[in-house]
Amino acid sequence: MSERYDAAIIGTGPAGLSAAITLKIRNKKILLLGSKELSPKIEKAHEINNYLGIPAVKGSDLGQRFMEHLKQMEIEITEDQITTVYAMGEYFSLQSKTNEMYEADSVIIASGVNFGKLYEGEEKFLGRGVSYCATCDAPLYKGKTAVVIGQTPKEEEEAQFLSEVAEKVYYVPLYKEETHLSDAVELVADIPVSIEGTMKADRLVLKERTIEADGFFILRESVSPAQLVPGLAMDGNHIAVNRKMETNIKGCFACGDIVGLPYQYIKSAGEGNIAALSAVSYLDGKKKEK
Amino acid sequence: MSERYDAAIIGTGPAGLSAAITLKIRNKKILLLGSKELSPKIEKAHEINNYLGIPAVKGSDLGQRFMEHLKQMEIEITEDQITTVYAMGEYFSLQSKTNEMYEADSVIIASGVNFGKLYEGEEKFLGRGVSYCATCDAPLYKGKTAVVIGQTPKEEEEAQFLSEVAEKVYYVPLYKEETHLSDAVELVADIPVSIEGTMKADRLVLKERTIEADGFFILRESVSPAQLVPGLAMDGNHIAVNRKMETNIKGCFACGDIVGLPYQYIKSAGEGNIAALSAVSYLDGKKKEK
Repeated sequence: MSERYDAAIIGTGPAGLSAAITLKIRNKKILLLGSKELSPKIEKAHEINNYLGIPAVKGSDLGQRFMEHLKQMEIEITEDQITTVYAMGEYFSLQSKTNEMYEADSVIIASGVNFGKLYEGEEKFLGRGVSYCATCDAPLYKGKTAVVIGQTPKEEEEAQFLSEVAEKVYYVPLYKEETHLSDAVELVADIPVSIEGTMKADRLVLKERTIEADGFFILRESVSPAQLVPGLAMDGNHIAVNRKMETNIKGCFACGDIVGLPYQYIKSAGEGNIAALSAVSYLDGKKKEK
Repeated sequence: MSERYDAAIIGTGPAGLSAAITLKIRNKKILLLGSKELSPKIEKAHEINNYLGIPAVKGSDLGQRFMEHLKQMEIEITEDQITTVYAMGEYFSLQSKTNEMYEADSVIIASGVNFGKLYEGEEKFLGRGVSYCATCDAPLYKGKTAVVIGQTPKEEEEAQFLSEVAEKVYYVPLYKEETHLSDAVELVADIPVSIEGTMKADRLVLKERTIEADGFFILRESVSPAQLVPGLAMDGNHIAVNRKMETNIKGCFACGDIVGLPYQYIKSAGEGNIAALSAVSYLDGKKKEK
């Protein structure tokens, strides 16, 4: 059996980090999932003036301070991306892109709003030809044809890996940077529009052409929340939460950009704190039941 | 006509300060009301660990950083206490303890939870013998008897002032510190229980004795929100707000401890930011209507 955490925190922006430090102070065993570069949005911010107590700070400097705070509290970041969170009743099971499974009694979703719009047909064919995890599903495409849509250059690695298994791999980059792929992967410079098929997805329609294939991998910086946690109630593009940052699923909390406007660091940090304390109260309540 | 502000912010804890800096960034004309010592609660905090980006900080040091932030943004604190906020429809009129009147198009209430419990009869007789402002109502008690209940030593000044007008003044301190009052004020070392009367309040019942008087001044560090803003919807002891920090009164927002648990600096700062941006959107909407 894998190690059981008190709380898994998905995301290393201000909301996730704030939740992590609060849970750590409350002696909870946490798993903080994200990137050691924290959040690309923070890094890119020129100057932030409204983070009370830290005036006129560059995004990268604020990121440094956050890292320093984690270090002082001995909080580690696990660099992994969660593709699906399964509510198992008494706990949550988290599946990652590297095919790792994690277990936690509560989950805090703070993964931001970098998930992009869903393609037409994407949701309909998810699990029936559409996948978010090449590493997990590659074996299914042995000797077959697959298309990989990559939001960032990081995804090239997955396309490359897939090409070692599949007969044919197409790669559609959604970014401007030069790609670095072997000849085994065919580059497609076009814009995806929809995924079509009958029982299973069988073609990707792009602006200029259509590609027939057996599998379609859509790899984004983060997964849209409705895909991430099956059954999660949404409010438009955001996760629906109350003022305690509780979602409709018991033990599952959300905070930061993903729960709604305004997209502000201090707002996210504040919500992370609320979500963490709600999780503490949930965890303590569970303990008492036993 | 008095100067009209875009927003009046009541309170100088993290919520009020965060709201102030956000409104200032958005070029709004603000009136920040509170104390240059910010918040007594912050000053007293030993060590705060969960204010993301500022690890292991003493309350007084965090207060210093907040002051520095205000200074850098050229935000002034007006040292005054608001006793009543009147919603005038298109704007708000704020009456202060020093009998000053301020006007603002929007109001953000961030006055914390230091208002204490109401005495039995207090609400019933408010305006009929019970008052929160000695300076404002002193003239009504010329040649009469008044009781002043003071939550902090600061209130002694008001009792002293009242004694110059009234025939007789009793002072009930709710604190342990020594009092510094002239002989014109009679000190009462007892605990208030209720205010009683028929049409008007005419006596204060304490644990040990009862004092008959014409006026009863209850002076606390902050006024309870329901007293502060007539018509404000409450949720128990807290102001009822939605996730945009909107109250039931258009143009009136609230944030920080006064809107509910958890009582945490970073949560308050986050909510201050949300309240400010909601006020900006309200103010911009009003402008368009014209």
